[in-house]
Amino acid sequence: MGDNLPTPELQAGERIDQLYSQDIQIIQSSQVFSFSLDAVLLAHFAKPPVKSTGRMVDLCSGNGAVGLFMAHRTRGKIAMVELQSRLADMARRSIALNGLTDQITVYQQDLATITEQIDKDSVDVVVCNPPYFADEPDSRKNPNPYLAIARHEIKTTLETTIQVTSDLLKMNGKAYFVHRPDRFLELATLMGEHRLAVKRVQFVYPKAGRDANIVLVEAIKDGKATGLKVLPSLMTYDENSEYSASVKKMLYGE
Amino acid sequence: MGDNLPTPELQAGERIDQLYSQDIQIIQSSQVFSFSLDAVLLAHFAKPPVKSTGRMVDLCSGNGAVGLFMAHRTRGKIAMVELQSRLADMARRSIALNGLTDQITVYQQDLATITEQIDKDSVDVVVCNPPYFADEPDSRKNPNPYLAIARHEIKTTLETTIQVTSDLLKMNGKAYFVHRPDRFLELATLMGEHRLAVKRVQFVYPKAGRDANIVLVEAIKDGKATGLKVLPSLMTYDENSEYSASVKKMLYGE
Repeated sequence: MGDNLPTPELQAGERIDQLYSQDIQIIQSSQVFSFSLDAVLLAHFAKPPVKSTGRMVDLCSGNGAVGLFMAHRTRGKIAMVELQSRLADMARRSIALNGLTDQITVYQQDLATITEQIDKDSVDVVVCNPPYFADEPDSRKNPNPYLAIARHEIKTTLETTIQVTSDLLKMNGKAYFVHRPDRFLELATLMGEHRLAVKRVQFVYPKAGRDANIVLVEAIKDGKATGLKVLPSLMTYDENSEYSASVKKMLYGE
Repeated sequence: MGDNLPTPELQAGERIDQLYSQDIQIIQSSQVFSFSLDAVLLAHFAKPPVKSTGRMVDLCSGNGAVGLFMAHRTRGKIAMVELQSRLADMARRSIALNGLTDQITVYQQDLATITEQIDKDSVDVVVCNPPYFADEPDSRKNPNPYLAIARHEIKTTLETTIQVTSDLLKMNGKAYFVHRPDRFLELATLMGEHRLAVKRVQFVYPKAGRDANIVLVEAIKDGKATGLKVLPSLMTYDENSEYSASVKKMLYGE
């Protein structure tokens, strides 16, 4: 693929990486932003709307990794929302590179105002890989401002991402978040306060014998807040410190 | 051990089982009550107070499994609270059988009234293996009344066990609960409402690739409600459908 697609214009320091399992190319930059395994895990965990009228929104979309990785699994439209213009621009060029401009639209703006562009109660699925770290006065932040904003709650908060997710979703629409386990109960509580019932979670452990370092969460708008399912444990690495078979499949395919 | 201890009087249908890892004998009955793996997991997960002035309470103690399994790890006193007289009697005979009458006292009564016997704010550690199933009108219950009461919230509720736990504990005292993952968020919410901050949890999976079926929870009275730790995943069975090495160690010792 890609023969009839434009050669992307790369800025200094940028490279093109590939997610082989989804046959997706993505523009990355170690100076600005590269997707993490968390994005791959979230894209794999989330269930996109299948039908062509389905609407999916990727909040805090960064360089577009999650939405791009899910694009081939839905015939519906995808909206990405990213505050940082440099990252939104990378996402737009990656979308063009993959020939997905008809399917994916990037909104470069504060997600708190996205309901001015996308109707409330109109979305089937929201995915979100939010900043993980609270913006505490004494917290050490990355000196790189792109990464500081992506990782710390400088420009948004967990509650805002959840509020906006709930606003966007239709009744029974689904939200998929990835976060750190240390904030899981806060996330679940905030979701409950914003009409999102947590129904399925999956804990990801670096390897056997280690504490979980990632949690994947599925919630349903106006769902019944009972009957949590805790999906099978997922190991990032096997006993040989190589990616586990599950993660290899997500990255490289069958 | 046991040479100088009284021969226990066994009732019809009773037998004596052994938890080899702790060198504890326990009177069981398939007709009345036998401890489950959950009790072994909870006893292993919980940290008893070490010092001789430490006070520990086992709520919903059944035939005394959890308290008995923890007795050799503390020099402090243990109080067991069990509503059902038949189970409390089994526990008392097992305590005598193990020569632990000086360390362990059984209160046969509704746990809701236990603060009449044990002072509020006086306990270092509470352990609880509560009834797992809500007492819903249409829920199918075990026709055996002993098991129905032990498994369904007929005589107590999750909130009552948590309220009493919070009442008993000193500030910074610790609560250890075992429950089903489907009620984990309800448990965490109720704990939060009763001054118990959930700090450590461990999910137990029957085997690799299966949803978790047990959750172990540690909470601290008046602790800070942030920084949840999700401990390493624990598998009950290995790939050969035998107990995993971790569980074998809990049951049989090194």
